[in-house]
Amino acid sequence: MPTELAALTDCITPQLAAVDRRFMAELKSEFASVNTLIKHVGRFRGKMLRPTLLLLAGKACGELNDAHVTLATVVEMVHMATLVHDDVLDESELRRRGATINHLRGNEAAVLLGDYLISHSYHLCSSLGSTEASRIIARTTNQVCEGELLQIDNRNNFDLSEETYLKIITRKTATLCATCCLLGAKFAGATDDVASRLETYGLSVGIAFQIQDDILDIVGDVTKVGKTLGIDAEKGKLTLPMIHFMRTAPAEHQALLRSLLQSREPDRVEKIRNLILPSKSILYAQDRARQLVNRAQQAVAALQDSDARRSMETMAEFVVSRPM
Amino acid sequence: MPTELAALTDCITPQLAAVDRRFMAELKSEFASVNTLIKHVGRFRGKMLRPTLLLLAGKACGELNDAHVTLATVVEMVHMATLVHDDVLDESELRRRGATINHLRGNEAAVLLGDYLISHSYHLCSSLGSTEASRIIARTTNQVCEGELLQIDNRNNFDLSEETYLKIITRKTATLCATCCLLGAKFAGATDDVASRLETYGLSVGIAFQIQDDILDIVGDVTKVGKTLGIDAEKGKLTLPMIHFMRTAPAEHQALLRSLLQSREPDRVEKIRNLILPSKSILYAQDRARQLVNRAQQAVAALQDSDARRSMETMAEFVVSRPM
Repeated sequence: MPTELAALTDCITPQLAAVDRRFMAELKSEFASVNTLIKHVGRFRGKMLRPTLLLLAGKACGELNDAHVTLATVVEMVHMATLVHDDVLDESELRRRGATINHLRGNEAAVLLGDYLISHSYHLCSSLGSTEASRIIARTTNQVCEGELLQIDNRNNFDLSEETYLKIITRKTATLCATCCLLGAKFAGATDDVASRLETYGLSVGIAFQIQDDILDIVGDVTKVGKTLGIDAEKGKLTLPMIHFMRTAPAEHQALLRSLLQSREPDRVEKIRNLILPSKSILYAQDRARQLVNRAQQAVAALQDSDARRSMETMAEFVVSRPM
Repeated sequence: MPTELAALTDCITPQLAAVDRRFMAELKSEFASVNTLIKHVGRFRGKMLRPTLLLLAGKACGELNDAHVTLATVVEMVHMATLVHDDVLDESELRRRGATINHLRGNEAAVLLGDYLISHSYHLCSSLGSTEASRIIARTTNQVCEGELLQIDNRNNFDLSEETYLKIITRKTATLCATCCLLGAKFAGATDDVASRLETYGLSVGIAFQIQDDILDIVGDVTKVGKTLGIDAEKGKLTLPMIHFMRTAPAEHQALLRSLLQSREPDRVEKIRNLILPSKSILYAQDRARQLVNRAQQAVAALQDSDARRSMETMAEFVVSRPM
């Protein structure tokens, strides 16, 4: 969490600390070699965005209880599992400026560590009194897998539609954010209507977050964003600015982007950036992200005023104002 | 299922057919590309050993109900997920004489398809009325992951003890068999004592099955066993016959096995076979497997006589009398 955002979680500080402790306690094994591997998960730990969403949503709707800490730990494990398996998928050598599990111990260890995390997340979730949360979490992971499979299937599809792009990022990223807010609200005793508003908030923020991530992948500054950029183009993943460009740019520019995406030139990422930047396509994507942030803020506007609600509004704002 | 065993499942035929339908129905996606990938799972489908164990255990303890079909589908999905991810792990090119997912679509697709299967298994499991089954399934997958991680960590450990070997195969293979029998019994209304007997049956059969698999990997005939052999030695995996050999063979034979396991000679698997066959180490492992089969049969001997109970006794027998 960047320092300017740290204050946003003041109202959930004890619970976030409890999630941290719970996370490591649940993963602990009787086998030293398993524990050694689990230590590497620490390298992936980051903003705790998903636990934060879950706890803030709960706090905005009522009182936090132990089930919230349990579920916030569950969603963090689910998220970590997808990051670890993404390393196998992307074969990326750099994430958060550190070596990846994949790189450290080979694909085998990355696959198993991801499996270990997902298994422990379901195990922890099933410690709750009812199957409702387990059902919602598993429905969410079904959708995350679908999103990832759909994304692989559309790799190097230069005619990818905005509709399919939105289906992919909704499933891959936004559904888990929506689930965090829904569970936070439900376990604070929110009515169905309020829980549904929180779910809309999470879904909108999640989509906006991914669009912004995709924008940063093209125009971001690696020293500010803190991870490898230009990955989408490298991987043949068309994102919203590129999709808009392919629909609206002059035909010769479209053809140029297409050939750059297919080329193996070392400076093609730089060329793609220089091609798209002067167009209206970055602005178009930023505008879409802004609309989603507005929708998120409207969804929680009717809730009773509280630190948690205001934090949620500010967090939504931050999604589109992150350092470039 | 080999023809001589087909009769053993006569008393659960309708339920096994229901598991087959349920399996495919649960995995169906709204996306054509996801469905295309799922079709490849068919290549991995085999003996339905785990659903069979679950249904026979249920039938031996009482009446089968819809929860049994649900759970039998769940355990088959869990098993398929481990097979698909094992393909990433082992980078094996041949399984059941067909191309693997890994080979067909790359590691990425194999990782995601395994994740898709495991996610759907937990989702289906959470459709049951209580969290008990979800908790037991997730505890089991925790152990499967631990077993796999422990196995990787002991690759090329030529001093692997029998104790650690048993910990590995118990977690990696036998626990899921034990869980099948435990769940089958519980959901047929068995008492805790009877459910625990069935769990012992599954655990013993599972360990015996893996020991026999390891024996076949050394002495089996590839045309009869139907999968690539000699894999354990290739992968630096010490199995029971080799562990016994390393403990009991003359020092110069031990040194020879050690150097063969470390060598890259193309015919080293053949040489390992010829070294171990004349020793008592294969017999030792067969004897251990036989003891476990006896323990399994004793565990269910006190149950009321039924087709299901007799099928379980015969299945246990078959584990150690499979074609070599």
